[in-house]
Amino acid sequence: MQEIIHFMQHIKDLKAIQSVLSWDQETYMPPEAAEARAEQVATLAAQIHQLVTSERAHRLVKEARRLLDNGEVEGRRRRLLELFVEDIERENKLPEEHIRRLAFLTSEAQVVWRQAREENNFPAFAPYLKQLIELQQQTAEYLGYEEHPYDALLDAYEPGMTVRQLRPLFTELKSFLKQVLEVVQQTDRIIDRRWLFQYYPESDQVEFAKETVKAVGFDFARGRVDLSTHPFCTSFAPVDVRLTTRVHPQDFRTCFFSLLHEAGHGMYEQGLGGEYPRSFAISGASMGIHESQSLFWEDIIGRSAPFWRWNMPRMAQVFPQQVVGIDPQEAFRAVNVVEPGFIRIDADELTYHFHIILRFELELQLFEGTLSVSVIPEAWNAKMEEDLGLLPPTDALGCLQDIHWSFGGFGYFPTYTLGKLYAAMFWEQLQKEIPDVEEGIERGEFQPILRWLRKNIHYHGRLKKPAEIVMGVCGQPLSIAAFQRYLSDKLEQVYELNLKG
Amino acid sequence: MQEIIHFMQHIKDLKAIQSVLSWDQETYMPPEAAEARAEQVATLAAQIHQLVTSERAHRLVKEARRLLDNGEVEGRRRRLLELFVEDIERENKLPEEHIRRLAFLTSEAQVVWRQAREENNFPAFAPYLKQLIELQQQTAEYLGYEEHPYDALLDAYEPGMTVRQLRPLFTELKSFLKQVLEVVQQTDRIIDRRWLFQYYPESDQVEFAKETVKAVGFDFARGRVDLSTHPFCTSFAPVDVRLTTRVHPQDFRTCFFSLLHEAGHGMYEQGLGGEYPRSFAISGASMGIHESQSLFWEDIIGRSAPFWRWNMPRMAQVFPQQVVGIDPQEAFRAVNVVEPGFIRIDADELTYHFHIILRFELELQLFEGTLSVSVIPEAWNAKMEEDLGLLPPTDALGCLQDIHWSFGGFGYFPTYTLGKLYAAMFWEQLQKEIPDVEEGIERGEFQPILRWLRKNIHYHGRLKKPAEIVMGVCGQPLSIAAFQRYLSDKLEQVYELNLKG
Repeated sequence: MQEIIHFMQHIKDLKAIQSVLSWDQETYMPPEAAEARAEQVATLAAQIHQLVTSERAHRLVKEARRLLDNGEVEGRRRRLLELFVEDIERENKLPEEHIRRLAFLTSEAQVVWRQAREENNFPAFAPYLKQLIELQQQTAEYLGYEEHPYDALLDAYEPGMTVRQLRPLFTELKSFLKQVLEVVQQTDRIIDRRWLFQYYPESDQVEFAKETVKAVGFDFARGRVDLSTHPFCTSFAPVDVRLTTRVHPQDFRTCFFSLLHEAGHGMYEQGLGGEYPRSFAISGASMGIHESQSLFWEDIIGRSAPFWRWNMPRMAQVFPQQVVGIDPQEAFRAVNVVEPGFIRIDADELTYHFHIILRFELELQLFEGTLSVSVIPEAWNAKMEEDLGLLPPTDALGCLQDIHWSFGGFGYFPTYTLGKLYAAMFWEQLQKEIPDVEEGIERGEFQPILRWLRKNIHYHGRLKKPAEIVMGVCGQPLSIAAFQRYLSDKLEQVYELNLKG
Repeated sequence: MQEIIHFMQHIKDLKAIQSVLSWDQETYMPPEAAEARAEQVATLAAQIHQLVTSERAHRLVKEARRLLDNGEVEGRRRRLLELFVEDIERENKLPEEHIRRLAFLTSEAQVVWRQAREENNFPAFAPYLKQLIELQQQTAEYLGYEEHPYDALLDAYEPGMTVRQLRPLFTELKSFLKQVLEVVQQTDRIIDRRWLFQYYPESDQVEFAKETVKAVGFDFARGRVDLSTHPFCTSFAPVDVRLTTRVHPQDFRTCFFSLLHEAGHGMYEQGLGGEYPRSFAISGASMGIHESQSLFWEDIIGRSAPFWRWNMPRMAQVFPQQVVGIDPQEAFRAVNVVEPGFIRIDADELTYHFHIILRFELELQLFEGTLSVSVIPEAWNAKMEEDLGLLPPTDALGCLQDIHWSFGGFGYFPTYTLGKLYAAMFWEQLQKEIPDVEEGIERGEFQPILRWLRKNIHYHGRLKKPAEIVMGVCGQPLSIAAFQRYLSDKLEQVYELNLKG
């Protein structure tokens, strides 16, 4: 057991170092260093791969299997051993040649995709996308699956999740969202958002957002915030969590909500249990659970009415001119406006999930071979028109908008929506256990919330699977019910409606 | 050959990654991350050590020896193979247990030293120092030497340098410095330095220093500048060189000269030849040659009269109030005042070398066993009094001031003085080859200087040894003559003396 843990720590440390290299690359690396850095990254990746596929790794997996079979270990130690076996075996299932081809293709495809998006030229990207799908279908075969090849990929992001479970969940969700959208679109309530688009000095925005995430619980003794082109959170250890943000001088939402979002990820990372330090357990349970934490803080807390009752007086201190005459309730409404648009990452809490379900449906068809790459734009646009009543004028505003496919990340998108469903379930449970939570938020007291998340979710790291976490916290399996209630409640307040009849 | 180069690149990449980790640690790492980072660093170090001592390394060294013995490779490729054999064999000469003990002791000793310096408590540090000397004497035995055990350590910092060569060089230097110091101390010229100690806003200082190093040739597309407690330069590749500086709001010299110094190191790193990218050749030829580059830009250029004729109008633009009424010649004098002091790193170009020679003499006695650790303070203070007429009031201002001994860096100090001797020799040669160099400096034209250094020194990397570089550039071996002329010239201008006379 000791040697297994030591080996895990060795690999985990090297992976943390990979993250340091990426963080540096996105924040401070000088422009001409890219190629040299790519070599360093490749060398380290090769080193890790060599370790994971070494004789020693095989021997330790065998040893772990023996311990598991003999029932010699129990509880959390058992789960740790299972993670070890799963992770090492997973990496060993893919032939080296396949990994190399995938790495080569994705790095090329990302360059091509960027260019194609810029030039609105889907046909230029199509052949790469076609190859990527074929390679990832191959990946699914190598990894194995019970029912659907897509499950093999999904499992990498959301352990235990399957097409069989997702398809009806998303169908039900879509039908609910359609009904709500129809009602919202019929209202004539006009919400004034102009105050959000005034000039907010960039350094003041960053400072204000940093103070906000500090107030909600992100620990700056064990983390920091820098600027980058695309906001992200990365962790080298629970004591070293790095967030980035970006600033739009004329849109207050960009920096503020993106940093709250990343801080949600960051507080999760900072809260991972220390029982098996530097082991495979010290990581989020899944992409969906991770996203549940970022969306929890960004949307459920950060776009709530009590939060804005706390936040507006703070804003009035730092940005008195920009928010003059805006009361907290009006501010709450302004940050929750529903407005169908082309771009996923700009979408509101309602329409966002149309974007996800659309991608999920297309990915399934692509994997099942019922959709060919060349007609993706038509299929995309048809769905956008049907779901949101919008016809993308260009593919750059349509099927070329996301980076995910260019790195072969099929199966990734669903975790965004799953994250929101989890978040809504957690929120409902938290409200039951801490009935006065909203009064606390209004007073800027976020510690009880963070403590609750720490205890129920963060602490477990990967030692519980997503479904176990949900069942453990909420006493029921994943469903859309809590999200339905959450969204209806919110939109009733925002648009002064009665959705629940 | 190809496999050898590939293996070197692998190791060099991992070492570059080590540097990324250290840089991050000194610049941006959150305070509570230290322990986790130490684990990552240790894991990577173990990984590198494992590679360097692997079967494969031994096989490749054997192969390299065969190529060298057969005379199959020549010129620069030959030197590259020699470097490979030297580096790998060096690391293999030290038993793993010895490396572990040394790593453990130095990491502990640094903590103890810091505390001891703070509390002016040499006896607390003494037992660690004693052990460190014993271990490094052991290191010398493992590494081997021809004449003096100290040579084995010296060689790690300054390949080819020996006690036999250094001792007379430093004796001669000291006697020269004594004579000059005596003359300088007899003058009654009063130099007004108060303008240096006004309030200079910190961000303006950093900006000004950055513009200065940019003007002299540090390439910000392939490097950057950050803040840290102690200024340093580190390189991940010639295209990714990181400098740091620190700022004293009431002392203009701190940020300005430390950044010029580090930029000297940085331009060397940026100029390393690209013939064998990521190989063991891509590194400074020695610590002394490296220091020659930093001191070249800090002192020989940065404290020259023509430089200040260029720099004063620039300063007058950014700091008009602080430099009002100071003319370039007066500024030149102010930054060259000779003033004996306790602290090495604050010393001027003359008295600095007394500090180095003192340490060299003590290190030799400690290694030869003619001085015991317990009486270092007395020995130190006696020399300080004899050389500079100053009796350190505390050991914190005496033998506890430097970090070097706490990491076992015996043999390191001499390279600082060697750097200055090299720099003076290079400068004399450069003036012969570019007769109008001083007029250029006055106009802010530094490219001819950098080009000359690139071609004659930087380009070679480690493919020439220090002595070969000196001979190749200057046509004569290392001596103190050029430095004597340089220093005499300067002090004659500063103090309006006749030293050669």
